[in-house]
Amino acid sequence: MNSIHSTKDFSDLLSLQPEDRSQLIKKVTNYYIQFLDGLPEGKAYLGDEDAGKALASMPFQENPYPIDQIFDVFHQSVTENGINPCSGKHFGYVPGGGIETAAWGDFLGALTNRYSGINFANPGAVRMENQVISWMCNLVGYDHRSHGSLLSGGSIANLTGIIAARDHKELKARDFERAVIYLTDETHHCVQKALRLAGMGEAVIRYVPMDEQFSMRPEALDAIINEDLRIGLIPFLLIGSAGTTNTGAIDPLDNLAGIAANHQIWFHVDAAYGGFFLLVEALRSKFKGIEKADSIVMDPHKSLFMPYGSGVILVRNAEHLFKSNYYTAAYLQDDMEGQDERSPADYSPELTRHFRGMRLWFSLSMFGISPFRQVLAEKIDLSHYFYREIQKAGFEVGPFPALSISLFRYVPKDGDANEANTKLLALIHADGHIFVSSTTILGVLWIRMAILVFRAHRKEVDFAIKTMEKLKNSMNIH
Amino acid sequence: MNSIHSTKDFSDLLSLQPEDRSQLIKKVTNYYIQFLDGLPEGKAYLGDEDAGKALASMPFQENPYPIDQIFDVFHQSVTENGINPCSGKHFGYVPGGGIETAAWGDFLGALTNRYSGINFANPGAVRMENQVISWMCNLVGYDHRSHGSLLSGGSIANLTGIIAARDHKELKARDFERAVIYLTDETHHCVQKALRLAGMGEAVIRYVPMDEQFSMRPEALDAIINEDLRIGLIPFLLIGSAGTTNTGAIDPLDNLAGIAANHQIWFHVDAAYGGFFLLVEALRSKFKGIEKADSIVMDPHKSLFMPYGSGVILVRNAEHLFKSNYYTAAYLQDDMEGQDERSPADYSPELTRHFRGMRLWFSLSMFGISPFRQVLAEKIDLSHYFYREIQKAGFEVGPFPALSISLFRYVPKDGDANEANTKLLALIHADGHIFVSSTTILGVLWIRMAILVFRAHRKEVDFAIKTMEKLKNSMNIH
Repeated sequence: MNSIHSTKDFSDLLSLQPEDRSQLIKKVTNYYIQFLDGLPEGKAYLGDEDAGKALASMPFQENPYPIDQIFDVFHQSVTENGINPCSGKHFGYVPGGGIETAAWGDFLGALTNRYSGINFANPGAVRMENQVISWMCNLVGYDHRSHGSLLSGGSIANLTGIIAARDHKELKARDFERAVIYLTDETHHCVQKALRLAGMGEAVIRYVPMDEQFSMRPEALDAIINEDLRIGLIPFLLIGSAGTTNTGAIDPLDNLAGIAANHQIWFHVDAAYGGFFLLVEALRSKFKGIEKADSIVMDPHKSLFMPYGSGVILVRNAEHLFKSNYYTAAYLQDDMEGQDERSPADYSPELTRHFRGMRLWFSLSMFGISPFRQVLAEKIDLSHYFYREIQKAGFEVGPFPALSISLFRYVPKDGDANEANTKLLALIHADGHIFVSSTTILGVLWIRMAILVFRAHRKEVDFAIKTMEKLKNSMNIH
Repeated sequence: MNSIHSTKDFSDLLSLQPEDRSQLIKKVTNYYIQFLDGLPEGKAYLGDEDAGKALASMPFQENPYPIDQIFDVFHQSVTENGINPCSGKHFGYVPGGGIETAAWGDFLGALTNRYSGINFANPGAVRMENQVISWMCNLVGYDHRSHGSLLSGGSIANLTGIIAARDHKELKARDFERAVIYLTDETHHCVQKALRLAGMGEAVIRYVPMDEQFSMRPEALDAIINEDLRIGLIPFLLIGSAGTTNTGAIDPLDNLAGIAANHQIWFHVDAAYGGFFLLVEALRSKFKGIEKADSIVMDPHKSLFMPYGSGVILVRNAEHLFKSNYYTAAYLQDDMEGQDERSPADYSPELTRHFRGMRLWFSLSMFGISPFRQVLAEKIDLSHYFYREIQKAGFEVGPFPALSISLFRYVPKDGDANEANTKLLALIHADGHIFVSSTTILGVLWIRMAILVFRAHRKEVDFAIKTMEKLKNSMNIH
């Protein structure tokens, strides 16, 4: 009972003094410019396990650390360490985004700290999120009945879609062991994880055969469903992919939608990687049927170039998301007024969360939509270019890229190809100027060239090809 | 196949030109200073439903909008609208945080966009998150076997804990309808929502009687469990609260831990609101037994003053979180020993997400821990002060505040008290200088004074009391 009567000014304890604030602004903005300036010449991978250890020298303590030390440790341990998702030469996994306007959007969102979960709390923040969602619903071809939710990434977004499917079917828990989910070997593993999280770990998973493009075979799907019905199981969920993580394969969505409708199965499309390629007019036909999906996942931190932490679930019928996620309580009683705008919390497993709409709204407003379309079209062109050129450099390729991911590998005349490519990968990672990842499909180890960073252009792709050719030749395997 | 050969410089499409970048830096930093300078005199609630509608005048279009227009619309629609969680006069719900260093942490995190999900991708970012988690584990009294995960908020954090409990018990889905969860009427509703999301919507929920402080009665709990066992149900989860949302009540954690251990029930503590009050030495005894909980939820965006989007789940035994969230459970032991640093994705329902550790690490390093302790102690002192002074102003109070939330109401000599307080609330909201919320417990409508914003000091509390007294008197009800 002393602090409030003391002469000490508590108001300053968690606020910066004006001179410290000025210093911080200068420090951050200098770092910002330097960071962006350093990207073209910097490495895409700095595999220094030890670099992170500098953090251990700075345990949290009662008093502040000097600002220079904080920035040095951050720079050494985090920025100069591991994979650089901002590098134009990052071609691994699904490459990261991170456009600068989104970082400012996050800053403004966190500074003003508006509550974006419930309309009553901030009708502006809620309207902003809903505006972003409507734009996406429109992009996939959904009508006014649709809605969605901004989430942290593909895993939670897929989980939210799967829960909606489960609840729509009104399955009782005792039936979970007879419920069947259809997907392919190439479906992202977060789907299986989501089933388990949703309490359906005992559900039956059917891996539907694929064609040589790693796309689901619709006729095989139909046959399996019929057999499952015959033996008394409950087909309830079909997962289509619109851009698999491994190869970018797109399942025949229109056919799958028809089969799902016939059997009254929920059709969920995981377009986490590929979804925003819908912005490219020339690619829209590949996604035909996506508008018939019951739910769709897209990750703005992938094909919309946002920083990590942006996933979205869209549903064709808003009520399906509402049914699973709506819940109210006495302490929210003030919020019942003003329901002209849908509250995100009613359509999401989250109540309070990061004001994710801000980074999206700010970036889409600052740049307009056109540059996103153009950059995505460029990625497709670059992939086709890469697919042709990497063969000239003596590599074997996988299927022609459906989107912006190519599989390729070096096949030596003598010796084991998988072993040779494992070695080559190690050399590429040790070099670090470019970053690529790998995958194994049907026992074959492939190197993956995933082109999606908005800073990747022809120069970076040419550099990647030259680097891999040079390292391959240095191995002295024939 | 034209874009990569054209003369157009695609590298500029999603990057700002130097002059635009300078302009943006100036714009943001001016906004930052103005925003903070405006807080002391600004309103805590601006209930302008129409303000958000300016956004509709700015639909996403192919081309950019002028930067001034973007900032104007953001300011009008979002910042000058609804509840201001940054205001020192915001005493509603659980008040928001939003310290400025966290906003810069978010900026730096989004700019450099490091992948914090898997150790290989960025050992520094992962180590940083783990350092934050270890510090919290230590705070609650957990030993080296513990671990946790940084999530978006209390809802997903509670969901993650409940899933861990479900999986630890190795319940089959067909048993869900016989599984029993114990909580009180005052448990946050996200727990019931989480049960439903986790596939356990049919589970049995027991509302354990409370004492007059709204804390769970341990002897009642024990009796109910024994009866449930007798009739063949499966008691599996006990939820304790360490700071309920309504009143800040703390359940008798030590007693509950003992009962849970006796019956081999998972003991989960929701300390989303109250958890960081553990930093105040004088309050630690109230949390006695929390270190025996199997899992604990805390929200750094509440009692650690971070911006929205910071929740954390901690588990006493890391393996319990790993079991639910690691995708292939087969190599469980080997993997846990083999990893020099634990990967967040293995302990979280998320794979890719916002690099949440950064805002926390940056803030704890920039300020040190001491100011957090002092400001939290100040909030407790202010609550005791408020509790005494509001009575002098002619209001009736609820139980003495366990933490920083007080219930109070105006009881007129004639007429309905609930009606009078509903009217008073409407007047307070219309005035907007302060913001408080309300709740109904056992049919009684209470106004809630929740003191947690770090900018709330004695001046703001005095102002709140004066404002409410004045508005109450203006109603002319006796």
